[in-house]
Amino acid sequence: MEKARTVQTDEFLVRAGELIEAGHFIHSRGWVPATSGNFSARLRDGRIAITVSGRHKGYLTPDDIMLVDADGRALDGKQPSAETLLHTGLYRRYPDVNAVLHQHSPGSVLASRLFQGEVVLEDHELLKVLRGIDTHESRVVVPIFPNDQDIARLALRVDEYLKSRAQAKDICHGYIIAGHGFYTWGESVAEALRHVEALEFLFDLEIRLLGVKKS
Amino acid sequence: MEKARTVQTDEFLVRAGELIEAGHFIHSRGWVPATSGNFSARLRDGRIAITVSGRHKGYLTPDDIMLVDADGRALDGKQPSAETLLHTGLYRRYPDVNAVLHQHSPGSVLASRLFQGEVVLEDHELLKVLRGIDTHESRVVVPIFPNDQDIARLALRVDEYLKSRAQAKDICHGYIIAGHGFYTWGESVAEALRHVEALEFLFDLEIRLLGVKKS
Amino acid sequence: MEKARTVQTDEFLVRAGELIEAGHFIHSRGWVPATSGNFSARLRDGRIAITVSGRHKGYLTPDDIMLVDADGRALDGKQPSAETLLHTGLYRRYPDVNAVLHQHSPGSVLASRLFQGEVVLEDHELLKVLRGIDTHESRVVVPIFPNDQDIARLALRVDEYLKSRAQAKDICHGYIIAGHGFYTWGESVAEALRHVEALEFLFDLEIRLLGVKKS
Amino acid sequence: MEKARTVQTDEFLVRAGELIEAGHFIHSRGWVPATSGNFSARLRDGRIAITVSGRHKGYLTPDDIMLVDADGRALDGKQPSAETLLHTGLYRRYPDVNAVLHQHSPGSVLASRLFQGEVVLEDHELLKVLRGIDTHESRVVVPIFPNDQDIARLALRVDEYLKSRAQAKDICHGYIIAGHGFYTWGESVAEALRHVEALEFLFDLEIRLLGVKKS
Repeated sequence: MEKARTVQTDEFLVRAGELIEAGHFIHSRGWVPATSGNFSARLRDGRIAITVSGRHKGYLTPDDIMLVDADGRALDGKQPSAETLLHTGLYRRYPDVNAVLHQHSPGSVLASRLFQGEVVLEDHELLKVLRGIDTHESRVVVPIFPNDQDIARLALRVDEYLKSRAQAKDICHGYIIAGHGFYTWGESVAEALRHVEALEFLFDLEIRLLGVKKS
Repeated sequence: MEKARTVQTDEFLVRAGELIEAGHFIHSRGWVPATSGNFSARLRDGRIAITVSGRHKGYLTPDDIMLVDADGRALDGKQPSAETLLHTGLYRRYPDVNAVLHQHSPGSVLASRLFQGEVVLEDHELLKVLRGIDTHESRVVVPIFPNDQDIARLALRVDEYLKSRAQAKDICHGYIIAGHGFYTWGESVAEALRHVEALEFLFDLEIRLLGVKKS
Repeated sequence: MEKARTVQTDEFLVRAGELIEAGHFIHSRGWVPATSGNFSARLRDGRIAITVSGRHKGYLTPDDIMLVDADGRALDGKQPSAETLLHTGLYRRYPDVNAVLHQHSPGSVLASRLFQGEVVLEDHELLKVLRGIDTHESRVVVPIFPNDQDIARLALRVDEYLKSRAQAKDICHGYIIAGHGFYTWGESVAEALRHVEALEFLFDLEIRLLGVKKS
Repeated sequence: MEKARTVQTDEFLVRAGELIEAGHFIHSRGWVPATSGNFSARLRDGRIAITVSGRHKGYLTPDDIMLVDADGRALDGKQPSAETLLHTGLYRRYPDVNAVLHQHSPGSVLASRLFQGEVVLEDHELLKVLRGIDTHESRVVVPIFPNDQDIARLALRVDEYLKSRAQAKDICHGYIIAGHGFYTWGESVAEALRHVEALEFLFDLEIRLLGVKKS
């Protein structure tokens, strides 16, 4: 049997390079411990470059990134992340989203233990780095879903939620999976990474605040 | 239409280099998440080199820094930081200030949630790295202003406060904008950065102390 | 007297290189302060490459790694880590384990002060990076042993515990020594390091949670 | 007037190099914010290489290190650290000490706010990296002195304390100055740095523990 090999076009390599760099940064902050997390970017033809299952996100090489189709089927014989359907679901839901980043960060996991159903972020200037937000007088709601090893079922649940937010003309920037981590996305890897930095910063702030204020 | 282009004199490039390095450091500590924060330095002729709106402060290049006049008007067709008037207000108020650094740090944001109206820093040896302070037996007051998307109005409010401190011969080293971050300044980028390090260190200490002592 | 010198075969150098890199990372996170911690890897012929006593684990060179036999006796005139018997005990207990990493991390030391007898990790997606765990609906028990300067006695106590876990067909991924640090292991240095990242992340989360929830 | 210039012998340059590297590390951990802290090493002829006043300890060059005599008098026209007498006092008290490191670390400053008169470190395996300690069943006492801008007076107070510890055959590994930072030392820069890492780790642990346990 031949070794699985991805056809690495220029566009693939640019996107893969962005995901690799994002991984360096996210790992440097301790938000993808061990082999946790998974990242993807959508190519112009609709195929999705996504991290191979089980790789350490802080030390990715182009060979750790593979191609799947819009339904999450491997196109190159490699084994994609177990959570691929959460990525493809987001790309299907949002035509203008071209990158999805998922991390197991302390802020998001702690938030899921301390808040019920959602984290509400208000009165933070930093909210303005999120897509479509132009004042700190905004209310950004990040839902928390129960963890589920049945990814198809979880993807469906997430999508129903996102559909209802979209119908209410309410932008959703990310979601938390309880005891697990959070997903965020953007029109580019750069925007998705901006959302990662901002959301984790705010989750962490809210938790530190809880520790001080409750006592 | 021609691409906006800044005339990069030697002095501009030296100051830009200092702002770029300051950005590396401030980002490495997690104090300018995503595209938050903005930095500036005043040139000898009174023009101000300031970060272009929306750039990530951890990865600045000289092209991410532009020139505005003393009133904050762009001199090179680029779009300056939305908070430019807070920078120009400080340069107008303080003739000996030549650098202004603004960060969205966890310490300053948490302090704004936990303290009312001001943070008082006392009995800290580290206060001595602040301009004009030569003993830990000093009382350094850092005011907290409510956040405001009307930057002209906020700049005016800040300036009235700074004027009253100046009239009382009381040096002010920085201020916090609630839920947003803090501003500090110095006669050089190096001095302003020294103030960044010291103030954030002290904000963080006061918050950790509150977490332990209140319980 | 001749200087102690280890015969550095290719296999030894590869394993030593992995331990050196693991040390860089573990030190960068602050988990092996000063000269604390010790690391080892088992070679194919059963000899064990282990860190020399008293070296800083963040700045290891191949000369800081030596060879002992399966009973922990030095094979090259160097002085192995004082805790060598804890390493050899693990290799004897687990035929498929080829790397052991021990760190003095804040998470494990704090956990030993705050939990009685064991740390129970449940409902964490990150558990899935541990060997043999495939759902967050797992219960991972990390025992806490009292510290003991008599390493032979401690090794015996640990081994009796591990034997009873093995008899119950219950995988054990690591253990904490109170006020000291934790041990974890894997079939390779990479797997052991994955366990280090995951366990310390989870210990730290549980402690932060305790700080917030108890108040 | 000629520019102050230090005669940089080989021995001076080796010691300066060690202090520069120690500064990189200590700064990377955030323990010498802004221009705080000061470091020194004793040369074989009794002269002392010490950091020049007001330099950032994270970015030292050999020119930021100067020579003083055993009484702290500058030998090369440069301005030594304001706390030089605390260094020379330690060298006079301890003939076998050849390096002194002083940092303004969060752990030591917080400890000085939370503990009365001394920090007692017990039942920590990490104590064994301190000179002369060979079991975790040790009791290491780190005294806390009130801060004082009169360095000669503070040096005298410290020395009287150290003398009484020495008379009781009780090794002292470091001391805290309240709201300021801590001093530690060793027979070499490497040993002093080992003490820095271990003490700050333990101060931080004790404070985190206090935050959790008190609540």
